[in-house]
Amino acid sequence: MRIDPIGVIRTPYRNLADMPIQPRGGKGVRGEVIVDEAYAEGLADLEGFSHLYLIYQFHEARRTELTVVPFMDSSVRGVFATRSPLRPNHLGISVVELVAVQGARLVIEGVDILDKTPLLDIKPYIDAFDRVERSRSGWMGADGDEVEKKRSDERFV
Amino acid sequence: MRIDPIGVIRTPYRNLADMPIQPRGGKGVRGEVIVDEAYAEGLADLEGFSHLYLIYQFHEARRTELTVVPFMDSSVRGVFATRSPLRPNHLGISVVELVAVQGARLVIEGVDILDKTPLLDIKPYIDAFDRVERSRSGWMGADGDEVEKKRSDERFV
Repeated sequence: MRIDPIGVIRTPYRNLADMPIQPRGGKGVRGEVIVDEAYAEGLADLEGFSHLYLIYQFHEARRTELTVVPFMDSSVRGVFATRSPLRPNHLGISVVELVAVQGARLVIEGVDILDKTPLLDIKPYIDAFDRVERSRSGWMGADGDEVEKKRSDERFV
Repeated sequence: MRIDPIGVIRTPYRNLADMPIQPRGGKGVRGEVIVDEAYAEGLADLEGFSHLYLIYQFHEARRTELTVVPFMDSSVRGVFATRSPLRPNHLGISVVELVAVQGARLVIEGVDILDKTPLLDIKPYIDAFDRVERSRSGWMGADGDEVEKKRSDERFV
């Protein structure tokens, strides 16, 4: 299956060290999604949504591991029970806040994504589809505060 | 960029007609995720999570459109402001409930996915990362009840 980037994500994070590990840690941090002009028409009506899913390629991940030690833990875990970039296919998703749509350029907030990340898809976050009222987060015992403070390092290159 | 399926999603929906349009419409409907044995080790620790994101290929979508009329609406919308399969790269995501892990086979509930859909990734739903407290859903004015009742049709083949 062939996948082609539809644009690029620009953020203040030029390298993995010191990047937030999730959008909640990137609170207040702005970035831009630059969509290729060829796809600009597909952005119509997006401005009505407050949040988006971005699907992207972990382009700095150069290998695949089936078990990893995630940022929020000190134990080895199955990669599919983590959000590690070292997963098969190297696909990432983040929920970010949409601040503004300016032509084929989206201003976003709450960014945990490396600069120049290839963008594969944009989907609206839809409360009636996506909100999970009660969930269990397995080994991820951390609360929001810990996630906000945690920063990445080079372990997943 | 090359993407290879890591398994397949089995569901009761053999064709698009009458399939729920979102997991919330598939309440109580069970399916299975059959992960290739080569990736089974990566499923460790998944059983602690109550919900998963599945990333998959809309394998029945044979074309790309930049504007579509979504199931929940009667107006033409930009494809990135919808969850239509006719998007560039034909990537789908669903949040489903994880019922059981049996070796390389996951039993899931709340399924809105076509039978034999190629699976590209599994990620845990993590409350501290993914929960959006307040959001605006643009043209998608529908409430949960309407989403539950709505069924798909052939428009996105």
